Amino acid sequence: MNATYIATGSELLDFKLNRYTPIFSQKLSKIGIKLKYEITVRDDQDDLIKSINFALSNSDIIIICGGLGPTFDDYTRNAISKITNKKLVFSKKIEKIFLKRYSKKLNEALINQCMIIKGARILYNYKGTAFGEIIEYNNKIIVLLPGPQFEWEPMWEKLEKYLSKKIQNPITTFRFKIADIKEAELENILKPISNKFKLDFTILAGPNICEFVIRYDKKDLNIFEKLKFEIEKNIKNNIYGYNDDTLEKVIGSLLSKKKKTLSTAESCTSGLIAHKITNIPGSSIYFKGGINAYSNEIKERILKVNNLTLKKYGAVSEQTAFEMANNIREIFDTDFSISVTGIAGPGGQTPQKPVGLVYFGISSKKITQTYKRLFLNRDRQYIKEASANTAMFLLYKMIK
Amino acid sequence: MNATYIATGSELLDFKLNRYTPIFSQKLSKIGIKLKYEITVRDDQDDLIKSINFALSNSDIIIICGGLGPTFDDYTRNAISKITNKKLVFSKKIEKIFLKRYSKKLNEALINQCMIIKGARILYNYKGTAFGEIIEYNNKIIVLLPGPQFEWEPMWEKLEKYLSKKIQNPITTFRFKIADIKEAELENILKPISNKFKLDFTILAGPNICEFVIRYDKKDLNIFEKLKFEIEKNIKNNIYGYNDDTLEKVIGSLLSKKKKTLSTAESCTSGLIAHKITNIPGSSIYFKGGINAYSNEIKERILKVNNLTLKKYGAVSEQTAFEMANNIREIFDTDFSISVTGIAGPGGQTPQKPVGLVYFGISSKKITQTYKRLFLNRDRQYIKEASANTAMFLLYKMIK
Repeated sequence: MNATYIATGSELLDFKLNRYTPIFSQKLSKIGIKLKYEITVRDDQDDLIKSINFALSNSDIIIICGGLGPTFDDYTRNAISKITNKKLVFSKKIEKIFLKRYSKKLNEALINQCMIIKGARILYNYKGTAFGEIIEYNNKIIVLLPGPQFEWEPMWEKLEKYLSKKIQNPITTFRFKIADIKEAELENILKPISNKFKLDFTILAGPNICEFVIRYDKKDLNIFEKLKFEIEKNIKNNIYGYNDDTLEKVIGSLLSKKKKTLSTAESCTSGLIAHKITNIPGSSIYFKGGINAYSNEIKERILKVNNLTLKKYGAVSEQTAFEMANNIREIFDTDFSISVTGIAGPGGQTPQKPVGLVYFGISSKKITQTYKRLFLNRDRQYIKEASANTAMFLLYKMIK
Repeated sequence: MNATYIATGSELLDFKLNRYTPIFSQKLSKIGIKLKYEITVRDDQDDLIKSINFALSNSDIIIICGGLGPTFDDYTRNAISKITNKKLVFSKKIEKIFLKRYSKKLNEALINQCMIIKGARILYNYKGTAFGEIIEYNNKIIVLLPGPQFEWEPMWEKLEKYLSKKIQNPITTFRFKIADIKEAELENILKPISNKFKLDFTILAGPNICEFVIRYDKKDLNIFEKLKFEIEKNIKNNIYGYNDDTLEKVIGSLLSKKKKTLSTAESCTSGLIAHKITNIPGSSIYFKGGINAYSNEIKERILKVNNLTLKKYGAVSEQTAFEMANNIREIFDTDFSISVTGIAGPGGQTPQKPVGLVYFGISSKKITQTYKRLFLNRDRQYIKEASANTAMFLLYKMIK
């Protein structure tokens, strides 16, 4: 079975990133449904109707997200009513919930929010007034969800149960999480292996990280296991996890398990590593903090990098990275530390030191190691992200 | 005139965010073309053909991004050839460029990359081998672009020139950049005003920031000017800029202009503010750095927050925010400073201090001010982002 996801809202065309596509795809894939198309449309009933008709001709399940609010530009319910020829009816069930939740008398907006497609199953909204709906129509399933994630997420469990009953042949997706290797090099190693086993794969490249994604039918589990073994044999030094693992997650688990602490000294990434690490709930157990040393003065005066080191080798050098990592670990009194210093561009390069040159220091109480990486022909944002990923990966290799 | 943007690539459904939709929409909007639909499809020729046919029936211009590589899963050229019944032909022009760029003899992949739709205009690719194409077909315009932004971006100038010649009535988009006001409150203030002037508007809400977007026809410039005046009168304390302005940009411009420096002391945002501020090229002129104090020990030992303050009021308190801001400014010897301390959750709340409670300190050499905000019912990531935005906005208000 396959699905089309329709996102409604002019803002998703003009200004706002549509962040739900991969989320829906992964949630659907888990229960064996392939997301085939994603369509974004403006707040325009005509456009929406055309999209829904396209989806109905080309997929089994249509998930429409947004456009369920009480305001004038929320067209979804009316569009579905027109297409399916099912009436909008007043739901006493929703009215009862609203009366309990809000007041004795519903205002016009809330009365509008009680209208549902006749015969629809209701998906309860705990956080807002737009209830989800499941509509069966001509052997197709149409699902209406409210726009905000915190509103539709609690509905997913019931929806998943409903959809699971309709599925025969689930497809599994497996992702190898890889770092510090070039996409082309990875492709050269893994493509011949994967082709030999005849399983579908994709390489997704990020800033000095990659995902190697394999999709397989349940009956091919054996083939997948063999392929997995081959992949791990060939790139084991670059794999840091699987599926939903992230660098900040695997570092966090390791530090928690080993009861060790971490600090950071960041120049060109200026806080990005500390930010990523603290995106993990509970990270305060192992992360004490760090210093963003964006000027030489701070590197010298606060991070205690030797003035001679800065003069002789410069702020972007192996020696400075070494001292930054060593010193922050001592100043913050942690078991491990990370340092990064580099040229994020677009300015600041010299003939010897191009934009994209970054040095790393990874320090433990036993040893401080330095590394050099070159992210050439990349923009500032990429270089910062790649530096943060690389630093976390190098730390992972030291503590694992 | 309106357009459909088709993104090809299974990764854009499964794992990778499609970041181009708003970019294309804004670029097209500038020359008066409205992006009507965005469709994402897998690497599957059949799915792609269906999408293109939908786009051809519903829009004047179709921009297809991706699927122009030399590998087996790159279907775009073949799909277009089938739909338009135009042959793929070998381009001597591209061959010549490749021979000059690479070697005396082209490999198979490069020979594939010389194939173009008969009659197409070529858009030169300086950074890769997939050349763009403009194809005229049945009064419609089909544009083929390579996937990576750094490859298609240099092609846009020529494409824009070509498209501009086809346009009559450009539409302008104007965005007010707003912070530290609830979306609902903003709507209550601005909706009646905008409705009075009968111009199209949208409110886009982010983490404690909003955009108020107005779209108008060139002939309505006068009406727009009146509306702009009214809007600024009503929410002037919350506007920090227009259009492409960001908080980090406006802060950066102010600090540069006034030749002042900045430092940060971050607890719950842990580096996010420092990271955002240093996303601006040249920020090292005004940003010295900061301390991410994620533990009480670091707040006390490095940031010199009084032990009694932490004991009596706690780390998440007005008093701690005050000392953090004051002390970082002194320790780092800067003109201004920002501090943030709060509960990002999901753990860590107490009956008195819920998840989402955040205190801010904004300090200059003359005064240190503190603020309290509550971001209730939000997740960790939202609270961090909202805190960073609020802190930057409060600094903006102090230095402007």
